[in-house]
Amino acid sequence: MANERDKAASVGVGETRIARIELPPEGLRLDGGAALPELNVAYETYGVLSPRRDNVVYLCHALTGDAHAAGWHECEGNAPGWWDDMIGPGKGIDTNIYFVVCGNILGGCKGTTGPSSLDPATGKPYGTDFPAITVGDLVTVHRLLLRHLGVERVAGLIGGSLGGMQVIEWMVRHPESVDRAVCIASATSLSAQALAFDIVARRAITSDPDWQGGRYYGTGRRPDRGLALARRIGHITYLSPAMMTSKFGRERRERPAGSAAAPDFSSDFQVESYLDYQGEKFLKRFDANSYLYITQAMDEYDLATGRGTVEEALRVVKAKVLVIALSDDWLFPPEQSVALAGDLLRSGRQVSFCRLHAPHGHDAFLVDIEHLSEVVRAFMPWVRRNGEESAAAVGSGAEDGVSDEPRPRPRHGVRQPPDVEECDRLLSMIEPGSRVLDLGCGDGRLLSLLKARRGIRGVGVDISIESVIDVLDAGHDILQGDIDAGLATIPAGSYDYAILSETLQVVRKPRFVLGEMLRVARYGIVSFPNFAKWSLRLQLGLRGRMPKGKSLPFEWYDTPNIHLFTLKDFGALCREDGIRILQVHCVPDSPIGALLVRMQCCNLGADRVLVKIAREET
Amino acid sequence: MANERDKAASVGVGETRIARIELPPEGLRLDGGAALPELNVAYETYGVLSPRRDNVVYLCHALTGDAHAAGWHECEGNAPGWWDDMIGPGKGIDTNIYFVVCGNILGGCKGTTGPSSLDPATGKPYGTDFPAITVGDLVTVHRLLLRHLGVERVAGLIGGSLGGMQVIEWMVRHPESVDRAVCIASATSLSAQALAFDIVARRAITSDPDWQGGRYYGTGRRPDRGLALARRIGHITYLSPAMMTSKFGRERRERPAGSAAAPDFSSDFQVESYLDYQGEKFLKRFDANSYLYITQAMDEYDLATGRGTVEEALRVVKAKVLVIALSDDWLFPPEQSVALAGDLLRSGRQVSFCRLHAPHGHDAFLVDIEHLSEVVRAFMPWVRRNGEESAAAVGSGAEDGVSDEPRPRPRHGVRQPPDVEECDRLLSMIEPGSRVLDLGCGDGRLLSLLKARRGIRGVGVDISIESVIDVLDAGHDILQGDIDAGLATIPAGSYDYAILSETLQVVRKPRFVLGEMLRVARYGIVSFPNFAKWSLRLQLGLRGRMPKGKSLPFEWYDTPNIHLFTLKDFGALCREDGIRILQVHCVPDSPIGALLVRMQCCNLGADRVLVKIAREET
Repeated sequence: MANERDKAASVGVGETRIARIELPPEGLRLDGGAALPELNVAYETYGVLSPRRDNVVYLCHALTGDAHAAGWHECEGNAPGWWDDMIGPGKGIDTNIYFVVCGNILGGCKGTTGPSSLDPATGKPYGTDFPAITVGDLVTVHRLLLRHLGVERVAGLIGGSLGGMQVIEWMVRHPESVDRAVCIASATSLSAQALAFDIVARRAITSDPDWQGGRYYGTGRRPDRGLALARRIGHITYLSPAMMTSKFGRERRERPAGSAAAPDFSSDFQVESYLDYQGEKFLKRFDANSYLYITQAMDEYDLATGRGTVEEALRVVKAKVLVIALSDDWLFPPEQSVALAGDLLRSGRQVSFCRLHAPHGHDAFLVDIEHLSEVVRAFMPWVRRNGEESAAAVGSGAEDGVSDEPRPRPRHGVRQPPDVEECDRLLSMIEPGSRVLDLGCGDGRLLSLLKARRGIRGVGVDISIESVIDVLDAGHDILQGDIDAGLATIPAGSYDYAILSETLQVVRKPRFVLGEMLRVARYGIVSFPNFAKWSLRLQLGLRGRMPKGKSLPFEWYDTPNIHLFTLKDFGALCREDGIRILQVHCVPDSPIGALLVRMQCCNLGADRVLVKIAREET
Repeated sequence: MANERDKAASVGVGETRIARIELPPEGLRLDGGAALPELNVAYETYGVLSPRRDNVVYLCHALTGDAHAAGWHECEGNAPGWWDDMIGPGKGIDTNIYFVVCGNILGGCKGTTGPSSLDPATGKPYGTDFPAITVGDLVTVHRLLLRHLGVERVAGLIGGSLGGMQVIEWMVRHPESVDRAVCIASATSLSAQALAFDIVARRAITSDPDWQGGRYYGTGRRPDRGLALARRIGHITYLSPAMMTSKFGRERRERPAGSAAAPDFSSDFQVESYLDYQGEKFLKRFDANSYLYITQAMDEYDLATGRGTVEEALRVVKAKVLVIALSDDWLFPPEQSVALAGDLLRSGRQVSFCRLHAPHGHDAFLVDIEHLSEVVRAFMPWVRRNGEESAAAVGSGAEDGVSDEPRPRPRHGVRQPPDVEECDRLLSMIEPGSRVLDLGCGDGRLLSLLKARRGIRGVGVDISIESVIDVLDAGHDILQGDIDAGLATIPAGSYDYAILSETLQVVRKPRFVLGEMLRVARYGIVSFPNFAKWSLRLQLGLRGRMPKGKSLPFEWYDTPNIHLFTLKDFGALCREDGIRILQVHCVPDSPIGALLVRMQCCNLGADRVLVKIAREET
């Protein structure tokens, strides 16, 4: 893990400190009603706090994490922090810019008050006298730590898994205190399957006679068998099935020849060694009661509880939110992140969504962070160390978006860079200050142009991760997804305009997509290649071959354009579906075409067509 | 489960009998080298054995099954057998036709000799002195039971999960003894993830102090906590995540208001009640040591061990095999069944494959058997009770396949019933007695016609389950799958002809599909609509609208024909890809078209084209 390159970009040697939090005389009141008389919080920080204290990034760690997120400790071997690949100078969370804080969660066993801490009332460890805790209580303690450090607001709030639940709860409970929030591989509540695994894991601990009702401290016996079983179950759920196969398959460890089968029914499969190793390692660093309390808080967490629905709960959010799903995560499956993004949209919040290719599974956010770093870096507000906001969020390239070189990375394979005249025409179709959805947004150039020239608020949709990074970097929101399937989460009437530029012919269900556009937006703006162009007609008519042209450059057998149609065909569909055509702009690609267009023979002359549409008023 | 309809079609009241198997003096020699001095096998039978003893169907049960597969027992309440929905008069395994046998597996605890049986050497239960067993040993015992019943060969061999592993091992170890084999939701070895779950489950049992090294019989203490934990883990893996959500979600059971949190960290989620119930119920009917021995046999099972590769191992198989995958099974995922079918194909065996929609997950083969019954019924040899083979396998409708009504269920949405002339032309392109792959085979009518008139051996490929049932019923093999992705498992040169009738224009990657056709077969026969037909040219040329015609009847926005092309275009691709066109047959759809075709203006006159192709010889 800790190679030389990593060390060069590391935050270096650090240490975990303990904050003794000042509490009111009645102690820390918890959500469940009980109070804690004392509160210690273990934490680490990286980077430098800006004079205006506005460059704070707070990390919420997952189930078994701790405050040691980055760098190395002098005394404890050479193990880097749990997110060292993500945090450091020039990394995803750049310590040249941000002041990063990570605190061990309440109920933990790595320095923050938890069931293994001494109860001041008895002078003995709490054990199961420790009160039940909630995800909300974890957030309360994070905020007490920040106040202790003199910080009230965070520029960025980031967490994965249980950490993501803390992010969600935090931005709902304390909306004013969060600028941007990143929620990775998480959910507003656990799925039934994830609940089931936690239930069995807890039962493994409490079934262990050495658990002794939770009062095992000082008895010389600990529920190690139960805790190791729980950890083994956890580790199965953290890896995707495919990764488990590629890491272990049915490989066996070497055993002396002729050795008999183990009398305890253990096997010599590598996967058993791995699970045993993870179980044993865990015993050295974790407390069984902490595992019980924290998984219980996670299981009980449901953002909707006491708030109506998730959508209603999210209405108070002020942060700009980035929801990140991991493709092969089956513990917090991508659908849960999609649902969260959808609820944020429906509640009218500012949200971006992406789904990272993560073959590793749930654990990918800890170990496989190439794209994750890029996405988080692009999304973060880029507050400079002196506290001034960078201009990068607005995008210095925005003003001259059209005159730039053609975009280097074509998206959806077919999108043409609009020419100057077409661009002006498109701009003229859009009212200043409106809300625009750009479907197949590529690198966000059109959004930047519209923002610069028309002052729109734009959101892009595209399928590629490169688009996500570019568009976030340019300061727009983006929803990563397939247009054929992807508008379902967007509520009706969310936008003034939906733009579908050179994409209608590549979607599987063009009629459905047009309908969806006019469900989510008042106006649609569509451009497409016109199959009725004179030169195409001649090619088929005289040569008997499928025609090709400037906007249809592909061979029949490998074209992405799976629906060919003419301007007339488009008009007929619009009539049939109650869609009004408000404006048509025909783009010829030759002098003959231009002449035909001037003669009003648009269907014959246009190479491409730009159309503004709306629903027929009923 | 046991409603009135079920009872009407039930095998009725029965009982489990015990066969005391005669063994040679040295006892039953096991794969591991040890010998068992005595062997009892618990079994049930349903239906009547035919005089020629050729109507036997043997059921291999799964991990925790038993001999009681169907009907009711007089004394034990009213619980039907574990596959009562499948077995009975008129059901999937029809007891009007077949004599069905099911024996409890070796190592079990429901009447067959296992670790809880008395060791004749000591007069006490074996416990962990019971020798290790293999899937091969289970098969040996099944065959001893059949011999005890006077049966040497089975007409059908069926099993799911661990039962499927027994089916695989049986048909490889004793190829002559199996006519048709059905392998459901199984694999030639467990995946790493399934291994991991078994490993943790076994560890839960052996970590329980009450296990006492396996010698708990008669001590008054049993490893109930461990066994119930193991069963809870199992039950999580038997349900798909979606089914778990729809069954339980985050529902809670009613608890008295104001009741405190449980001191044992149990929750009031319904899913916990369910898992507890399953765990407790299991303790009443299963023995912990049996669970250890049988899961170990399952984990260790690998068909390839000692046989080179799976493909090599399967070369001896003589049975006709049906491999059934369950869509939402994540314990034995569909890919493992696909791999088995692929290995059977590569080893030159006769195999059919289908993937059933099974939202329930792995358990679906026990509880959600609508399509499973139909598929199994269609696949089985239909031996009549008097022992004569039915003609149904050959298909009485085969001779007059063409003159029948147009097929009632169109497949792939676009396939035209070939007219008589086209059919004759197609038949004339195919050598008698050859091996034919029909891609997009629909109900198998063309295969039946080719079999009747040209004596071919045919295999179909189609995406729909209705096709699977029809084609199996007609006595052909079928591989259910998407043509765009589905030829990868078929080895090169397996067929003389691959037919792609009216389907090239609907596949995503026509060039790839053509290449695949000529990889798996020497000749390809392709038919497609010709976009260069005179009337289509006129429609586009003069009207400026996308043309429609007899073979292109769809609107541009909802056509399945996503690649339009002309005969000339097809020829150009063939030239480019080194494909030789051996024969062309043009099908006009009007007198003008017919005239043009007669004038050799095929590209202008043909509505559809039938082409025979082959690779250029190098």
